[in-house]
Amino acid sequence: MLRDRIRHRPLMDKLVTADEAAAMIEDGMVIGMSGFTRAGEAKAVPLALAERARKHPLKITLMTGASLGNDLDKTLVDAHVVARRMPFQSDPALRKAINAGEVMFIDQHLSETVEQLRTGQIAPVDIAIIEAVAITEHGGIVPTTSVGNSASFAILAKKVIIELNLSQPTTLEGLHDIYIPSKRPARMPIPVVTPESRVGLPYIPIPPEKIAAIVVSEKHDSSATIQPPDNDTRAIAGHLIELLLEEVRQGRMGHDLLPLQAGIGTIANAVLHGFIDTPFHDLKMYSEVLQDSTFELIDAGKMSFASASSITLSAEMYQKVLPKLAEYKHHLVLRPQEISNHPEVIRRLGLICINTALEFDIYGNVNSTHVGGTQMMNGIGGSGDFARNAYLSIFVTKSIAKNGAISSVVPMVSHVDHTEHDVDIVVTEQGLADLRGLAPRERARLIIDRCVHPNYREALDDYYQRAVSRGGHTPHILEEALSWHQALREKGSMRG
Amino acid sequence: MLRDRIRHRPLMDKLVTADEAAAMIEDGMVIGMSGFTRAGEAKAVPLALAERARKHPLKITLMTGASLGNDLDKTLVDAHVVARRMPFQSDPALRKAINAGEVMFIDQHLSETVEQLRTGQIAPVDIAIIEAVAITEHGGIVPTTSVGNSASFAILAKKVIIELNLSQPTTLEGLHDIYIPSKRPARMPIPVVTPESRVGLPYIPIPPEKIAAIVVSEKHDSSATIQPPDNDTRAIAGHLIELLLEEVRQGRMGHDLLPLQAGIGTIANAVLHGFIDTPFHDLKMYSEVLQDSTFELIDAGKMSFASASSITLSAEMYQKVLPKLAEYKHHLVLRPQEISNHPEVIRRLGLICINTALEFDIYGNVNSTHVGGTQMMNGIGGSGDFARNAYLSIFVTKSIAKNGAISSVVPMVSHVDHTEHDVDIVVTEQGLADLRGLAPRERARLIIDRCVHPNYREALDDYYQRAVSRGGHTPHILEEALSWHQALREKGSMRG
Repeated sequence: MLRDRIRHRPLMDKLVTADEAAAMIEDGMVIGMSGFTRAGEAKAVPLALAERARKHPLKITLMTGASLGNDLDKTLVDAHVVARRMPFQSDPALRKAINAGEVMFIDQHLSETVEQLRTGQIAPVDIAIIEAVAITEHGGIVPTTSVGNSASFAILAKKVIIELNLSQPTTLEGLHDIYIPSKRPARMPIPVVTPESRVGLPYIPIPPEKIAAIVVSEKHDSSATIQPPDNDTRAIAGHLIELLLEEVRQGRMGHDLLPLQAGIGTIANAVLHGFIDTPFHDLKMYSEVLQDSTFELIDAGKMSFASASSITLSAEMYQKVLPKLAEYKHHLVLRPQEISNHPEVIRRLGLICINTALEFDIYGNVNSTHVGGTQMMNGIGGSGDFARNAYLSIFVTKSIAKNGAISSVVPMVSHVDHTEHDVDIVVTEQGLADLRGLAPRERARLIIDRCVHPNYREALDDYYQRAVSRGGHTPHILEEALSWHQALREKGSMRG
Repeated sequence: MLRDRIRHRPLMDKLVTADEAAAMIEDGMVIGMSGFTRAGEAKAVPLALAERARKHPLKITLMTGASLGNDLDKTLVDAHVVARRMPFQSDPALRKAINAGEVMFIDQHLSETVEQLRTGQIAPVDIAIIEAVAITEHGGIVPTTSVGNSASFAILAKKVIIELNLSQPTTLEGLHDIYIPSKRPARMPIPVVTPESRVGLPYIPIPPEKIAAIVVSEKHDSSATIQPPDNDTRAIAGHLIELLLEEVRQGRMGHDLLPLQAGIGTIANAVLHGFIDTPFHDLKMYSEVLQDSTFELIDAGKMSFASASSITLSAEMYQKVLPKLAEYKHHLVLRPQEISNHPEVIRRLGLICINTALEFDIYGNVNSTHVGGTQMMNGIGGSGDFARNAYLSIFVTKSIAKNGAISSVVPMVSHVDHTEHDVDIVVTEQGLADLRGLAPRERARLIIDRCVHPNYREALDDYYQRAVSRGGHTPHILEEALSWHQALREKGSMRG
């Protein structure tokens, strides 16, 4: 019943079609839309907007939490609607437009976008479009499978359009914890002190009169296409679990470890999956997205609680989790990405952070975003929020890509997202390098010996030896440092 | 009177000579020593240690707060005492040994060293050597002109050697605020909510029986050799003040601005000095080191409070400030560098952070540490702690160096300490580029137009145009990206 979902009665008058809602959007506007890692994005209004733009061209700045599902970024880009986009994306069509210079993409730490909005340092949000599972008696918005930046978008926007998604289960209500940091300079500590801490409201509090339109939708979230573990990801998980067992043996933590964070994607998911067959127990997550592995660990009795900003699952896992959400809810909380990724909370809790590198170099600098130093993949996302303040900052990648044409371990990364100061551990299927407390020359020795693929080991060692003969705290041969990437560009392989 | 300075009577028995104290240090030990930006370092024991090592060689790991004065790093390196050094230094002799690979230097964010120590992730401190102005009735250590890492070194070390410096005024007592974050995972919020917040003790609390020796010293801190403002630094200050006036006009802050942080060195000092002739008032600092400009601003009635981890002044300013310390003390607090530089507090307070770049590139990536990508200067220091979580992250540099042989604005930095995600504003004497909310191509346009020296503008623009023709989110020509640094290395000038 719609009345159970729109519990503030006067808002029933705001029900409109997606086309009518999209007509509120004007050329040049800044739109803040829900959606984080393909979960909980507004789905009907952006499609209507694209449709409209095909007849009557217009351009907007589109802000979201992170990536969108349902090919929305593609549809909007194909309709030439997106002039500017922030703070993250993972769509091939949008990526192409970004790399062609057609869309201005602002690649940001996911915790920072709303700080800049709140202080007026970037253009204000004209309209927020938020997917909701319900609107409370007092007009509070109950988000769906992600919180992302939705709360601040709704609070800061001049108008709010709600997409009420009837396909999302009402059991989502109560899952969210909406806490917004107070304005500076009078800001108080963020009171999250454990992953379980509930410090806010289960809905986004806005004056109901700001809600300009409500559109009913029934579209589902896109399911994640996670690859199953393979030998390489199993090997990476194995190295990492061995490291954590040693941390326990050294008395640095118990078998419940410290709260875990894992970036989105196949490798991180496979690593967490590997925790099922370990002596670890009572694990907790404080992460930005919950993938299949979180629920596998909960089901296996290994994980007791998980905090994040979104839930993104495979089709099978959605079918399993959504009907039982009322049970899982006791183990879960979804927060604004500003809080899930907040440096203050990350540093306080002391997280074990596992993120994926595109490539890393012999000194442990990490490139997470740019293929060949120039072509944007997705964006830095939350990796910087987590890596900088982690108890253990771990980056994982397979040692080679494209059938060996690419080495993920290179003399110098072609783009830096995480400097050596922020990287404690690097892991490939070949092995793990524990870089804590080491100087650059020591880091290089370990990375070359442990992490690089045998096909590239000799060449990398040769580069390093010749670089050392030139001296320096961080030895390099500048005219060769990026030659592997040049060879890839010119000849299709780093082997030259 | 010594009895006024050693108020825990049983400790009078621990008085020894510097030679006797130095004899406690054994080969292979990890020594944690006071000292931050050439302020408050232990002075007598390290000299005795160097003397001893000339006859009986030994090697140690030396940790400090940051850089040391009194040529201590040089003396220790000349005596071949230092095997490993962290987390910062600024000594030419040590720098040479680091770049030759003779000393392993671990270049760390200044807030992080004691986190790693506390969790046992790096080798534990055997002996802490702490300069003190007094020891309290219960054995508490009252530091001198810096706190740095002294508190955690003393708390975590097996033994503590005190250097009681009789030349330091007893009015220093009450200046310090020693707060140590609790152990994770049960850590509570750090309760600092304004620069003035006092949340700890005015001394370092340790059991007095841990104090193994007390050495009396009368050596002074080295004074800072700050260059006076010149036309270039005045121009940089001018651009920056114009930016801040605009922030006020936009209603983003009042004329009291937000708390200021300024890195050590001539340019940052000159910029702060420039604030004297502005409409700003009731300014506050939340920084890591207080230089001459802080006291000039206090004297001018422009600054009401300053928090830091050390005080480092010119000889003239020391003579002025030390006798009047009791008066200045109401406007000052010195904290552990973990707190002065803590991401949690920095983000909460919303700081305006001004740090010096060695070079930056057309996309706003900053190199703070490595000349030509390989030769370490000093270290990243606190710049990363501040830049990442600042309200405004500003980097300043003169547009050229070495009589124009070096352009500080380059196609690609040869080493990355701060990625474009963490850099809001770059300023040279040529002008200021406000990069907030801009995509890389927009950043490049602004930086080339505003910041680069006219002698290099055409070449940089030419590089960028040709890079853009190759496409990409962050266009580059990999085989040319570091060619300016190559030319400098081979021909002594970036002009080739």
